[in-house]
Amino acid sequence: MALIAQSRRLRRTPFSEGVEAAGVKGYTVYNHMLLPTVFESVVADYRHLKDHVQIWDVSCERQVELRGPDAQRLMQMLTPRDLSNMQLGQCFYVPIVDETGGMLNDPVAVKLAEDRWWISIADSDLLFWAKGIAYGYRLDVLVDEPDVSPLGIQGPKSDDLMARVFGEEIRKLRFFRYDRFSFEGRDLVIARSGYSKQGGFEIYVEGSDIGMPLWDALFKAGEDLNVRAGCPNLIERIEGGLLSYGNDMTRNNTPHECGLGKFCDTQSAIGCVGRDALLRVAMEGPIRQIRAIEIDGDAVPACDHLWSVFAGGKKVGNISSAAWSPDFTTNVAIGMIRMTHWDAGTKVEVETPDGMRKATVRDKFWI
Amino acid sequence: MALIAQSRRLRRTPFSEGVEAAGVKGYTVYNHMLLPTVFESVVADYRHLKDHVQIWDVSCERQVELRGPDAQRLMQMLTPRDLSNMQLGQCFYVPIVDETGGMLNDPVAVKLAEDRWWISIADSDLLFWAKGIAYGYRLDVLVDEPDVSPLGIQGPKSDDLMARVFGEEIRKLRFFRYDRFSFEGRDLVIARSGYSKQGGFEIYVEGSDIGMPLWDALFKAGEDLNVRAGCPNLIERIEGGLLSYGNDMTRNNTPHECGLGKFCDTQSAIGCVGRDALLRVAMEGPIRQIRAIEIDGDAVPACDHLWSVFAGGKKVGNISSAAWSPDFTTNVAIGMIRMTHWDAGTKVEVETPDGMRKATVRDKFWI
Repeated sequence: MALIAQSRRLRRTPFSEGVEAAGVKGYTVYNHMLLPTVFESVVADYRHLKDHVQIWDVSCERQVELRGPDAQRLMQMLTPRDLSNMQLGQCFYVPIVDETGGMLNDPVAVKLAEDRWWISIADSDLLFWAKGIAYGYRLDVLVDEPDVSPLGIQGPKSDDLMARVFGEEIRKLRFFRYDRFSFEGRDLVIARSGYSKQGGFEIYVEGSDIGMPLWDALFKAGEDLNVRAGCPNLIERIEGGLLSYGNDMTRNNTPHECGLGKFCDTQSAIGCVGRDALLRVAMEGPIRQIRAIEIDGDAVPACDHLWSVFAGGKKVGNISSAAWSPDFTTNVAIGMIRMTHWDAGTKVEVETPDGMRKATVRDKFWI
Repeated sequence: MALIAQSRRLRRTPFSEGVEAAGVKGYTVYNHMLLPTVFESVVADYRHLKDHVQIWDVSCERQVELRGPDAQRLMQMLTPRDLSNMQLGQCFYVPIVDETGGMLNDPVAVKLAEDRWWISIADSDLLFWAKGIAYGYRLDVLVDEPDVSPLGIQGPKSDDLMARVFGEEIRKLRFFRYDRFSFEGRDLVIARSGYSKQGGFEIYVEGSDIGMPLWDALFKAGEDLNVRAGCPNLIERIEGGLLSYGNDMTRNNTPHECGLGKFCDTQSAIGCVGRDALLRVAMEGPIRQIRAIEIDGDAVPACDHLWSVFAGGKKVGNISSAAWSPDFTTNVAIGMIRMTHWDAGTKVEVETPDGMRKATVRDKFWI
């Protein structure tokens, strides 16, 4: 692995100082911003995440704010998920598609008011698409990136840590709901959500100046909970089937191919720009789809490009993410497999950088 | 510096194999793709670039292709530069602005046919903005990212190397002009352009499969020219005043602030979405602007965030890029300075991570 070159273009975050003091060893770049990928080791971080509580600098989940009378209309134009019954206090996972039904992002939408939304984005400049649509349709809406940097609290002890800093009420927060909690006189939006299956919260830290004070307060409050700095963990997210935009899906894929058909209400999501294209897909179904794949043998190398999947000498798909799982003592992987071979139990072969491996299509992810 | 974590999301290029074999030591991420930043050392690479010839994997300059009857109309909507007299065979450096006149990208536009353009982009998803505008205006144009990966040939011996592979005719190619040249039976668009002041070409390698054959052919042909793998060099580009989108300018800046007013034909660029906003700026002029800044003292550390510039205790600007220049034996820098202090010779102070430094505003860049 090579070093990452520092520049302003790879933006630091309000928590970078804390991340560096905690000994970050690896970074990726996500929405033109630094995202830690490893502290102790990917395996040690994984173990700790499943047993304790971690604080994650996920500032790179930048917000696209929609504000104004047409905010809801624009939001519905962006996604095939029906938002008409969405309430204040809710967060929705929303596929975002272009006019061909191709995935542009898979963010979480936060409805702050009837005329104000945050879209907590995956790795693409969704701001540009939203601005282009708003301009083209002459919508009465402001589209901008506010000074909001999410901080993730993840792991089984998350409730205990958060209650100490924000009060016992936070334990009652339901999954994919948010509320406002106070820290040093500031009201912060906090949701029960996050990019792991270990439970936890995302704090939408509004105002960079409050970043390090909050970071420090959480570490101080969690000393006896064995709190540590962490980050989205490659192994854990594959075990849990958490998809990554740019890794497991791109603009070439429809939500249905990604197993996100349940978030496509093509009959009722009136106004979505991709609706016409997706109606067709919804009727006929996709011909390839995301699957959990178990790859035999020792730990696979880093999956930094698509690995072809074969059956009977013919290509039937690709692997997009893979890692060795200590808990399941196998290589866990995410792949896109053609319908002819996507049934659970199907035996396939994967072309990894160090040779062909036997693999099996699974019915579901590991947890 | 931390390591960069490998994943499919940080896309490899058709030349990655060659880049790795050449011993790349550092990467950045640019348009979701790996861009080398250092091979031997930034200083050694700099010396070699100025004396010999280098081959650069700049695949990350992804192309946004506009194709169809409305391609030219859309292209003019994107930029305030007047394209009405642009000829086939020309490349134009074009600021791209939103409806407020804010910079979204600063690419090179290549006019391939009356109804077909490539936009060779800097680091932002310009595709999303172009698609949004095209959709909103119901334009008859396809907007897509083709399988085209630019390969830069830079340095004083570039003409000699290129003539050996593509024939003597290539020496006649004028600056910011392109023509088609043959390699292994394939016609490739080649322009005299590139992100250095040392002269050279950019080969628009169409078809990933031809990537490594071309890479290898160039190295073989250039053995006695001391050809090496290289990359955009931080020192050389600052000396030459080559701006970097995301570093030296963002969506917060107008082209005029970036010294790109000469590319804004606000009277004649009919249809540009940012025209109204920029007419105002063109009349009144910007109140801050990019300047070359000389920073005193030893080599500065990496400039990974804006450094404040002060005069008389008041903030008057920011430094966005800086490096020690061996040839000019000073720290060369790019900054955005308020009009009260932008005159050449003005003494200012720069807040670097290792303390305040004296600095001077210059009338122009070093070369």
